[in-house]
Amino acid sequence: MALAPRLVLRIAYLGGGFAGWQRQAGPRTVQGDLEEALGRLYRAPVAVRGAGRTDAGVHAAGQVAHFDPPFAIASNGVRSALNGLLRDDVRVLAVYPAPRGFDARRSARAKRYRYRLAWGDPLDPWEALRCWQLPSRPDLARMRRALAGIVGRRDFAAFASSGHSGTGERGTERTISSARLIVRGRHAAVVLEGDGFLRGMARRIVGALLEVGRGAQPPAWFARLLRDPRTGPPAPTAPAHGLTLERVFYGGPPATGDR
Amino acid sequence: MALAPRLVLRIAYLGGGFAGWQRQAGPRTVQGDLEEALGRLYRAPVAVRGAGRTDAGVHAAGQVAHFDPPFAIASNGVRSALNGLLRDDVRVLAVYPAPRGFDARRSARAKRYRYRLAWGDPLDPWEALRCWQLPSRPDLARMRRALAGIVGRRDFAAFASSGHSGTGERGTERTISSARLIVRGRHAAVVLEGDGFLRGMARRIVGALLEVGRGAQPPAWFARLLRDPRTGPPAPTAPAHGLTLERVFYGGPPATGDR
Repeated sequence: MALAPRLVLRIAYLGGGFAGWQRQAGPRTVQGDLEEALGRLYRAPVAVRGAGRTDAGVHAAGQVAHFDPPFAIASNGVRSALNGLLRDDVRVLAVYPAPRGFDARRSARAKRYRYRLAWGDPLDPWEALRCWQLPSRPDLARMRRALAGIVGRRDFAAFASSGHSGTGERGTERTISSARLIVRGRHAAVVLEGDGFLRGMARRIVGALLEVGRGAQPPAWFARLLRDPRTGPPAPTAPAHGLTLERVFYGGPPATGDR
Repeated sequence: MALAPRLVLRIAYLGGGFAGWQRQAGPRTVQGDLEEALGRLYRAPVAVRGAGRTDAGVHAAGQVAHFDPPFAIASNGVRSALNGLLRDDVRVLAVYPAPRGFDARRSARAKRYRYRLAWGDPLDPWEALRCWQLPSRPDLARMRRALAGIVGRRDFAAFASSGHSGTGERGTERTISSARLIVRGRHAAVVLEGDGFLRGMARRIVGALLEVGRGAQPPAWFARLLRDPRTGPPAPTAPAHGLTLERVFYGGPPATGDR
């Protein structure tokens, strides 16, 4: 029973300091830090529910979560109080009242992930914090063709981490609505939008793309991961620190041009 | 007596993990990490000399240093070996043979520092690593007028940290050849180029500018720091994490358009 209107948090974090989003008994997690800060602010236990779980090392620029405050504090007051209680590697960007019936996870219509790549000379350490550095330039045209094949609704079991049971209500079918490879100089980004991502899916899509991009696997191998998702071993995983959960979309599909 | 040609290093680092550039007995420093890595690579003590010392917390995108290798290894081999030995927050971007008579400090003609500012909503933690977040938008036009006054050769004693003796061969006179305020949305950067910077000088110029920008001091106060540098207390200091040593110039003044 909420005594005050549900509040929504928009959150950014650097993943390097966290064992992922989800609260765990021992290590530091984003949910754990937020619940601890809210507990200190309201002097009562407060549960935070996120739009999705990010793995250890994965960053967020626009994670969304909600909580039911024990009593009302002005939204702006909540934001600055939380940021005062949180460490520097996690920031509450915005706090606002939830629309009626809003649930950060169930109401989410789509998510956008961005995976950053670079090659050539070593990167500045600031850039390198969220970018996978490749030893040489991959075949970007080949990667772009492979990437086009993932758009649509299909079984992404070949891109699911072993921890994923695939027995939940949704199984392992998901819809990828947009998959782009953006290249700028010696940097590239794989930008994926979809109605949901299996555990490890974004990183395994990029891991498999790079197998094709560096010539270790033929395009037919990538196509088979999509066509026969349960016949071979899962796709390899790209490192966590290249991945950022960029945005969670609510109230309809991602608007055209809203990028 | 160098047994192999002197080598030049171009280095980038995130300042947060370091007690500054200069080697110290206890805490971690950039020079200390580099000398330790070179010592392991060459299995002999190697001294590294930097173009300038950055304070604790100050970043570098293009610090320059030199060393005299005990024996010859191909420059590219040195780079990758060093990056394999160094932690992720310091990277050797380039290694190349020194021109005849080159000394990283004595041969430097100019340096460029960039100080990043932002205001408004909280920054993404990745951006915040190297940006000073202000509570509100400062008066940028006023800051720009004050900044124009520092260009030229003058006594910058009012912008020197107390540790600076001012008794060296150069005293406290320096030439600032360019001082710009670049604004983009709710971000700004103060970009300073000069033939040398006293200890703390870049941060104190920005600290004083912000006193004027937030209306705490009149423009006349800033002008007096420049005109009568020894009559009052020194200018306040902006936080270290906003400052980056961006480039060291050799072989002549900064080329026009070379920005």
